[in-house]
Amino acid sequence: MLVSRSCAKRLLASAGRAARYSSTGTSQLNSVTEQDIEYFSKILPKTSIISTLAPISSPSDELNSFNSDWMGRFHGRSTTVLKPKTTRQVSEILKWCNERRIGVVPQGGNTGLVGGSVPVHDEVIISLSNMNNVRNYDPVSGVLVADAGCILQSLTDYVAPHNHIMPIDLGAKGSCHIGGNVATNAGGLRLLRYGSLHGSVLGLEVVLPDGSILDQLTTLRKDNTGYDLKQLFIGAEGTLGVITGVSILTPPQPQASNNVILSLPSFDNVLPLYQTVKRQLSEILSAFEFIDRTAYNLAVKHGQGRALPESETVGAECFILVETSGGRREHDSEKLLDLLESLLGADKPLINSGVLSQSPAEFSSLWALREGVTEAVSKEGKAYKYDISVPLASFKQVVDDTREHLRSKGLLHDKAVKYVLGYGHVGDGNLHLNIVADAYLPEITDALEPYIYEVVASHRGSISAEHGIGAMKTHALHYSKSDVSIELMKKIKAVFDPKGIMNPGKVLE
Amino acid sequence: MLVSRSCAKRLLASAGRAARYSSTGTSQLNSVTEQDIEYFSKILPKTSIISTLAPISSPSDELNSFNSDWMGRFHGRSTTVLKPKTTRQVSEILKWCNERRIGVVPQGGNTGLVGGSVPVHDEVIISLSNMNNVRNYDPVSGVLVADAGCILQSLTDYVAPHNHIMPIDLGAKGSCHIGGNVATNAGGLRLLRYGSLHGSVLGLEVVLPDGSILDQLTTLRKDNTGYDLKQLFIGAEGTLGVITGVSILTPPQPQASNNVILSLPSFDNVLPLYQTVKRQLSEILSAFEFIDRTAYNLAVKHGQGRALPESETVGAECFILVETSGGRREHDSEKLLDLLESLLGADKPLINSGVLSQSPAEFSSLWALREGVTEAVSKEGKAYKYDISVPLASFKQVVDDTREHLRSKGLLHDKAVKYVLGYGHVGDGNLHLNIVADAYLPEITDALEPYIYEVVASHRGSISAEHGIGAMKTHALHYSKSDVSIELMKKIKAVFDPKGIMNPGKVLE
Ligand SMILES: Cc1cc2nc3c(=O)[nH]c(=O)nc-3n(C[C@H](O)[C@H](O)[C@H](O)COP(=O)(O)OP(=O)(O)OC[C@H]3O[C@@H](n4cnc5c(N)ncnc54)[C@H](O)[C@@H]3O)c2cc1C
Ligand SMILES: Cc1cc2nc3c(=O)[nH]c(=O)nc-3n(C[C@H](O)[C@H](O)[C@H](O)COP(=O)(O)OP(=O)(O)OC[C@H]3O[C@@H](n4cnc5c(N)ncnc54)[C@H](O)[C@@H]3O)c2cc1C
Repeated sequence: MLVSRSCAKRLLASAGRAARYSSTGTSQLNSVTEQDIEYFSKILPKTSIISTLAPISSPSDELNSFNSDWMGRFHGRSTTVLKPKTTRQVSEILKWCNERRIGVVPQGGNTGLVGGSVPVHDEVIISLSNMNNVRNYDPVSGVLVADAGCILQSLTDYVAPHNHIMPIDLGAKGSCHIGGNVATNAGGLRLLRYGSLHGSVLGLEVVLPDGSILDQLTTLRKDNTGYDLKQLFIGAEGTLGVITGVSILTPPQPQASNNVILSLPSFDNVLPLYQTVKRQLSEILSAFEFIDRTAYNLAVKHGQGRALPESETVGAECFILVETSGGRREHDSEKLLDLLESLLGADKPLINSGVLSQSPAEFSSLWALREGVTEAVSKEGKAYKYDISVPLASFKQVVDDTREHLRSKGLLHDKAVKYVLGYGHVGDGNLHLNIVADAYLPEITDALEPYIYEVVASHRGSISAEHGIGAMKTHALHYSKSDVSIELMKKIKAVFDPKGIMNPGKVLE
Repeated sequence: MLVSRSCAKRLLASAGRAARYSSTGTSQLNSVTEQDIEYFSKILPKTSIISTLAPISSPSDELNSFNSDWMGRFHGRSTTVLKPKTTRQVSEILKWCNERRIGVVPQGGNTGLVGGSVPVHDEVIISLSNMNNVRNYDPVSGVLVADAGCILQSLTDYVAPHNHIMPIDLGAKGSCHIGGNVATNAGGLRLLRYGSLHGSVLGLEVVLPDGSILDQLTTLRKDNTGYDLKQLFIGAEGTLGVITGVSILTPPQPQASNNVILSLPSFDNVLPLYQTVKRQLSEILSAFEFIDRTAYNLAVKHGQGRALPESETVGAECFILVETSGGRREHDSEKLLDLLESLLGADKPLINSGVLSQSPAEFSSLWALREGVTEAVSKEGKAYKYDISVPLASFKQVVDDTREHLRSKGLLHDKAVKYVLGYGHVGDGNLHLNIVADAYLPEITDALEPYIYEVVASHRGSISAEHGIGAMKTHALHYSKSDVSIELMKKIKAVFDPKGIMNPGKVLE
């Protein structure tokens, strides 16, 4: 179904005549025209094109879900979604768009939280959803090679019978694509144990804006032959090329998992506790999650998980959820029990008490206390959410300082900010700072930004630990990256995408 | 001690007049002149400069060890070694060299095995050996920030009292620098367990060729704010900038280590064995090393480690060394014993026998059988060594095919090739293919190259799993990297180093 070179040239010329500059700002990109659709119809079956333009003329509501992000906060005005089935087709599309200077937004499961997956104006959306086959799996090495459009959950299911798991896991797993995970360098619940995608992604196949195919879909764990280019695409949020294939290392499935919730009289105990737990649980420690008292109370208030007995929570300033996963249940339980014994028996105990799960149901309900904070917060009011990295030691101070800052602005009361709370992955240095308000108010936004970004910068932290920059935080990039870094990023962008067609308006302004 | 801007300008002008183009080839780089030395003397104390040029006029033999590589195979003709103590000094040096178009070779411990650390012509050598302080260590998170010139062993010693280890370990640890490890993306003995440096390096400080300082020395485990530029320097072998600082995650020290050597009747059993061992030992498996019969015999012949009882080795086609490291000795031993029992008790056993170490001395002597192969080979004759990655399943075939290929060329006899053998890290897909000859002979070289590179390419393998490209393999890069990749690497090189002063002649031709 590939179009011939001369035919492509002819179409390009006529499309060029019909082209007009986008009216929506500074960008020098063109809108999609009917001639473009004519060309796309030659390289893709009609069922792979959704467009309000003739000759496809889809009803406009068919585009809605592609033009709006998961939070319903960002809205694009794309007329056209293309759903290629092959890398070749992606290549033909990009080549055309590059010559025509049409902006392109790669879209995976559209679960991103920073507006990166929807157009800023009327860019073409390339949805990877039709590229969803596993290409190869080697159960000995655990290396999986898959199309970028495979849904994370379906890959988890695919490797499960081989006693392997995916190295990442996150709440959006039922919708997000492995390509989207790589493009956002997603973190999630397994990072403490299995490290980041920069370590577990072994190879990528990427279509560059000019249509050339960068085939680095190796399955090798070790390869020191020149610059590791694939790393640039991990976390580039679709601004350098379209990821079409991913080769990734899947770890063996742990045989057993346990968890315990510890209540702490003081935040000051979190760090020494973390050290003790790391030493005693060693390689079986798989999560060490922090929930402050406010977050715990909200989770309980809104029925997330099962509340701990009151005797266990009096005087607790915060809670830590510890999870183990290992190769043999008896060994793991023994290590966990010994840990609890030594913690409770200490001269100056770091914890008040600990509640150990005794069954799979209890295991889930302890996790629900931690994971349910998100939902509790959304039930309680409107949330300003910051996903930041700061040194572990400053978690509490950042939360307390933010609260005091809002108080000093006269914004801490029932009709403005109701709660300021923190929870997150101590093991990863990743704090979820939430400000729960009665309603979104401009004076709260003004009080929070740039205040929080400045606090993060003063700790040399990250303004976006997991979720990326997208369209949401381009203006704040300099709080985490120096001018030298940003300048180099721009030069690298220019190497890969000299015409600036890839996901315009994202990551870099 | 920084020189003023106007003084620098004046010196630059006079040095420029004195400049001559290097006579040694196509490169447009200048040699160091006395004016350059005059300038360097203004930014560095005299004790930090070794140069045969006036006014320093060091005896030329003081430069020998810097001009020759570890193997004694590559020799540069540099007149000048600079040993800066601070990042600022590195910046001033590079700025000057860039303006003057003087080639620069960053040198760490000079233990690299591909000729990357010595000049091709007469480039200036920047030795990092005076930058050897730990900048910061956080025993809670395990994050270490150190000058690039810190010796790996000294960092291992530094974190040991905190019950942590470095995430890499290699034979050269007493000499190699952490900066050199990062620049070569060194693999080593802990990769199976702790992953590659792309995962464990959290941040870098790099001086770019124009003297600007890229400060990404973050200690954050998670930071998704734009392209992860530091990744480009990991494995760039000093061709993009000088690494001056490294932030790295150090894992907790395992409490116990055990090992066992298994003898296998057939190579075909290696893969199913690997699966079984991974499943049963799970998170405590820390090494799974392969030694073929020829390699074992040579190790024993040359007194490496203690030979296994003959009853254990009859009929063995190859051997596997399994190591565990975990948090509690009793648990680990139990898992290992259960594994051995189930392996030996199986209906169709995958192994003939297993020898379990019972003491630290036995533990070391089992490892010595594996690690001693290198030394045994060098005692036996002249070795052609290939450090390649190929799919696990083809390890034996690659070795056998190479032997047959040499036989077919009439080169397999006492006066030419004596042994062809393989050993390596099954867990990493990394095969050390060694051809042991009576003497280095051109006909053997011709028979081996490009033969072996073509075999590697046909398996989509890597021609350099660990050691890099350096000066040795630039001509062979295309066997592992596509034209599209190489073209992009060149463009990236041009972004960082437009004048081509950084480690010229290395990695890219
Ligand atoms: C309930 C929920 C829980 C979440 N939990 C976590 C979490 O724990 N940790 C975490 O890190 N994130 C989390 N996220 C956000 C996370 O970024 C995404 O879920 C996921 O990684 C994005 O994948 P996606 O396929 O949905 O990508 P999309 O949302 O479609 O796209 C995200 C970005 O990647 C680009 N992109 C997508 N596919 C490609 C491709 N093939 N090639 C090039 N660029 C591409 C897009 O252009 C966009 O910039 C969560 C989101 C939700 C809704
Ligand atoms: C006995 C022995 C065993 C070895 N075992 C292994 C092994 O198991 N696994 C493995 O991967 N390698 C191994 N190696 C080789 C390995 O590459 C080096 O040992 C090590 O990583 C290089 O560090 P170095 O400080 O000696 O670097 P050098 O040899 O000085 O330099 C190596 C390269 O890095 C560049 N470089 C060095 N420092 C910097 C810096 N600060 N900034 C920018 N560029 C820099 C140099 O220009 C050069 O291109 C071994 C070597 C020996 C001699």
